Amino acid sequence: MTSPANDVVARLLELSALGRYDGGIDRGLATPPERAARERFAYWARRAGFTLSQDVVGNLFARRSGMHDVAPIVVGSHLDTVRTGGAYDGAYGVVGALCALQILDRDKCVTTRPVEAVAWAGEEGSRFPLGCLGSSVFAGLTSEGDALALRDNDGISLNAALQSRESGSLPDVPVRPRQETAAYLELHVEQGPVLEAAGVSLGVVTAIAAQRRYRAIVKGASGHAGTVPMERRSDALCGAADIVLAVEREARSSAGAVATVGHVKVEPNGTNIIPLRVSLSVDIRSSEDARVEHIERALQTVIAETERRRGVQIALERLEVRAAAPMDARLRAALHRSCAAIGQPALDITSGAGHDATCLSRVAPAAMLFVPSVGGVSHIGAERTEDRDLELGVAVLAAAIIEVDRDLGQN
Amino acid sequence: MTSPANDVVARLLELSALGRYDGGIDRGLATPPERAARERFAYWARRAGFTLSQDVVGNLFARRSGMHDVAPIVVGSHLDTVRTGGAYDGAYGVVGALCALQILDRDKCVTTRPVEAVAWAGEEGSRFPLGCLGSSVFAGLTSEGDALALRDNDGISLNAALQSRESGSLPDVPVRPRQETAAYLELHVEQGPVLEAAGVSLGVVTAIAAQRRYRAIVKGASGHAGTVPMERRSDALCGAADIVLAVEREARSSAGAVATVGHVKVEPNGTNIIPLRVSLSVDIRSSEDARVEHIERALQTVIAETERRRGVQIALERLEVRAAAPMDARLRAALHRSCAAIGQPALDITSGAGHDATCLSRVAPAAMLFVPSVGGVSHIGAERTEDRDLELGVAVLAAAIIEVDRDLGQN
Repeated sequence: MTSPANDVVARLLELSALGRYDGGIDRGLATPPERAARERFAYWARRAGFTLSQDVVGNLFARRSGMHDVAPIVVGSHLDTVRTGGAYDGAYGVVGALCALQILDRDKCVTTRPVEAVAWAGEEGSRFPLGCLGSSVFAGLTSEGDALALRDNDGISLNAALQSRESGSLPDVPVRPRQETAAYLELHVEQGPVLEAAGVSLGVVTAIAAQRRYRAIVKGASGHAGTVPMERRSDALCGAADIVLAVEREARSSAGAVATVGHVKVEPNGTNIIPLRVSLSVDIRSSEDARVEHIERALQTVIAETERRRGVQIALERLEVRAAAPMDARLRAALHRSCAAIGQPALDITSGAGHDATCLSRVAPAAMLFVPSVGGVSHIGAERTEDRDLELGVAVLAAAIIEVDRDLGQN
Repeated sequence: MTSPANDVVARLLELSALGRYDGGIDRGLATPPERAARERFAYWARRAGFTLSQDVVGNLFARRSGMHDVAPIVVGSHLDTVRTGGAYDGAYGVVGALCALQILDRDKCVTTRPVEAVAWAGEEGSRFPLGCLGSSVFAGLTSEGDALALRDNDGISLNAALQSRESGSLPDVPVRPRQETAAYLELHVEQGPVLEAAGVSLGVVTAIAAQRRYRAIVKGASGHAGTVPMERRSDALCGAADIVLAVEREARSSAGAVATVGHVKVEPNGTNIIPLRVSLSVDIRSSEDARVEHIERALQTVIAETERRRGVQIALERLEVRAAAPMDARLRAALHRSCAAIGQPALDITSGAGHDATCLSRVAPAAMLFVPSVGGVSHIGAERTEDRDLELGVAVLAAAIIEVDRDLGQN
């Protein structure tokens, strides 16, 4: 007989068909495949006897009752994907949450508090231009009105998309207002190489990293590649190369920080023309806000020096500042105890990627459990986690729910 | 009364209307505007009493007879432009050649040899994928058949384009076979900042630089910008930045050489993704072949070191190797004497850009005269040379033709 923890593999396989194409899985919020994924969630929840509800921005909840009708323990993740996504990022945490609730059923476990599995709407920001859309509204960081007014690249609003028969809210699920949360747990694939490299199947997240994103624009002087002597050049690409290497150097010298230039646009980008203008993305992350701040300041020093030395102008524009989200110490301890109880060591790990848990941590104690990503890769069709690790994660999550319920008591 | 040397300004203004759009002038070989430019050339030449002929690839000649029917002195440049070209690159040398022949008429100058003004077909390679197309065929470096078989981006062959009524060869001009050339002179805008910076109106080209073009491909390992620790990265863009700076450094340390990375393509080029693969163009030029060779070797050393240090793979593919084309000493001396005769100092200068004179120098003594480019810019709609400098160049060219004719004698 299949146990609920085994079901996680079969269910992820089922979901992976929704939105699949030759470039991976494309399952943006309020598209037909994403709606189909919510329908599967609702089907599994109903069959298990859980109570469904949704809110106006598309967050979907399956509730398992507790002894008392108090603020629930919420467990979940998201069903949407990036445009070239894989089968595990997000979906694992949603399916895993449902399976964990079913393990509580199987074990005839009565919790003090209700426990809810949740599928947050639009974590990836791949269709509507806001990451962690559903959890941000849930946590009161974004208003419902602002979220519903967001438009995709075709000018369709989230509001209109959620009204659609093919892709919108589920017609037979009641809509409920925002509610309090006693604690939040999220199960997720690591999306990086750390657990695999350590040979460990479970990671307890200490903090979701602070992140700052910038656009750097280097403006130099163009000219013919054959006719302008080297000493008369202000080559924007050479200035950009200085910045790329400075970003790397500063992150390397700050323990645990990462920094990346991922996007480059060179103008006019002709083989025969000295670059006039280069636009770079800069992304800096660390579990400590102060380290991100420090790297930014070091970068500004390099920029001033590069401007002087090369006769270029460099503008560094901050696009986004996210503070670090430390995970709750009591929940982390509960996760560690649950790992230890099944004889699995767990590694403390920083999450460089953002998650719905970032938003939830602003309004409730929150923590995350990671399982390894094969090859450390994610956001591609080939992202994968071993079945055994998927099942371990669900088992630990179920045990941790019980631990946390016990810790929290009734108030 | 307008002198022929003044005419150069009016004629360039007239040609600048042909192919003009908001991005500059687009006058590719065997397009309607380029055909219209050849028609203007033919009109001016006929009105002056010169004899027109053309060859099968679209080179167009206007002959002023000499005392003897021997190999002519050929003077000219090209009428085609890059896709965002200006009014001077090429057109100046063609119109200037016609005007110089008219100065000989005005001055009732009888030369020993015939003198021909020529408009070479397709120097820029902006429509058919071969630079210096017409002069290369004329010099026997490319066969007529190979040239006529070249196709543009729409699959149209040069042969078909030259048959077209709207854009092809001039219907009323006789076609002639290839012929010997006694000497070649080309008047051109500098396309760089050297003359302007020196405050000098005339430059005598010592050599057209050797040029090598490469594609460098850096392959690293991709990954999530937030989840891969710095010490586990093989970031292709950081490797590419090392190369960009090495290209610059090696050229700076080799007197008179220039080297440029002008084109960059990053994959996948996402703000959130460590670059997997970066493709770079590398262009190295020097008046001395040995210096280009030396920079290439230095670059290969840097590449090997970068591969080792970063765990990336770097392929450097040579796309083009052009030897330096030293200009003829006797012709250069004649140009210098002609400058001195009108009290204008001339600067010796290397041409970093390629020109039709490169091909001609393989089959005849060849030399070039430069006039300044305002702001050192070229290949853009705003390229410009002062009227006074345009007229000076034509006057010196006319004088140099007489000097060269005298030097060469009859044999």
